[in-house]
Amino acid sequence: MDIGAGQKFMIFLVISQALAIIMVAMAIVWTTRTLDGFAWDGSYKQFNLHPLCMVCGFILLYGEAAIAFRVFSEHSKFFVKVIHGAFHMLAFIAAIVGLKAVFDFHNHSNIPNMYSLHSWCGLTTVLLFSLQFLFGFLSFFWPGAVTSIRDMYMPIHRYFGLGILFLAAISTISGISEKLFFKFKADPAYSQLPSGAVIGNCLGLCVLAYVFVVGYILHNPQWQRSDGLESQSLTGFTRPTRYDTESD
Amino acid sequence: MDIGAGQKFMIFLVISQALAIIMVAMAIVWTTRTLDGFAWDGSYKQFNLHPLCMVCGFILLYGEAAIAFRVFSEHSKFFVKVIHGAFHMLAFIAAIVGLKAVFDFHNHSNIPNMYSLHSWCGLTTVLLFSLQFLFGFLSFFWPGAVTSIRDMYMPIHRYFGLGILFLAAISTISGISEKLFFKFKADPAYSQLPSGAVIGNCLGLCVLAYVFVVGYILHNPQWQRSDGLESQSLTGFTRPTRYDTESD
Repeated sequence: MDIGAGQKFMIFLVISQALAIIMVAMAIVWTTRTLDGFAWDGSYKQFNLHPLCMVCGFILLYGEAAIAFRVFSEHSKFFVKVIHGAFHMLAFIAAIVGLKAVFDFHNHSNIPNMYSLHSWCGLTTVLLFSLQFLFGFLSFFWPGAVTSIRDMYMPIHRYFGLGILFLAAISTISGISEKLFFKFKADPAYSQLPSGAVIGNCLGLCVLAYVFVVGYILHNPQWQRSDGLESQSLTGFTRPTRYDTESD
Repeated sequence: MDIGAGQKFMIFLVISQALAIIMVAMAIVWTTRTLDGFAWDGSYKQFNLHPLCMVCGFILLYGEAAIAFRVFSEHSKFFVKVIHGAFHMLAFIAAIVGLKAVFDFHNHSNIPNMYSLHSWCGLTTVLLFSLQFLFGFLSFFWPGAVTSIRDMYMPIHRYFGLGILFLAAISTISGISEKLFFKFKADPAYSQLPSGAVIGNCLGLCVLAYVFVVGYILHNPQWQRSDGLESQSLTGFTRPTRYDTESD
């Protein structure tokens, strides 16, 4: 049986969405059951919003934003740009809430900020994400963008899109790992693999699997948008580029 | 000034190799100065071979193997396949030594194996790497490989090549992070950022930067091999495929 490109895409899309549901469900179970739920009072319960916001923002919403151009291939480019930008904005808001949660917790408990490798990787991810968001907006939404710059920037925007997703996975997994060592110091120790540790480990593997499948969808040139429907900025300004007729 | 594709490639290649040198130098300094050097006696000094072997094997040698087709674009495909395979074999040997080092240390000190998220990610990386190595050998070196399977497998081999490099980075960074928390429990604590912790964090960022630049070199279609020099398996058997004349 020879499966066509459209059917293959649908298979990978369904796998990615199934992984997304499992990943978010595990993040909710882990943060509410293992880590004991949420609050906004500077306690460890405020910290618990950090992993949930980062998984939902920087992995799920960012990943969904990235594949929007493949999923809505039949819709106008203007529509997909709005979806792409809106998901990124939601990811950005989730990241800000998640960062506020961890800084408030640290400050409230006199724990130093920004010393761990996880925090350094996370900061790198947030900075690159913010730059990507800003340059993406200025290059592809803003009507004043110069065509030659859009042409030059598009392959960089694409690679950084994929790269930042992997960076987010690196930050997320090092963060889950760190939290598991803090949480399960003894009785039970992490090495005894209590159920909360197994859920945390499985959440990490789910993040890996989701990012790997989304990365494959993004990387496959067969599934890149190939129509020349339109080339509109957010204000409807039309500016055709090489990418509008090729594969953006 | 308009920089040509060849000059751009050279710039990124030089950056990647500079990062490689800094990364390995930092790994040596960290494992010898901060972690106290090496031995082969089941002690923590045997463990210290683990991070060094993994950085040198799964990041450096694997990364260099991956860009070999871009670097030796003027050489015969047979020659580059040998280089590509040889670097992978060296990476595989380094990984085996690195894994033996950590298992021996754990068994000698009665520390459970394979409980942490780092170890689960690491195992996933090793398994995928081994499958990639096996299927790569059978598909592109072995003369009996069917052309249609090679054609079908090549894009998967390419994506997994990039994906496994990022997985290796995830495993490496979660491992460095874990070791830093074990090493700097108190006096000095990790949060006080003693010099050994700063070196460990910087090593993690160097791994990130090297993988990001190598990933960019691999991802850029301009720099894919585009000649049709030859299509030889390891035994010299000629079997032309679409990729031999396009971009393998």
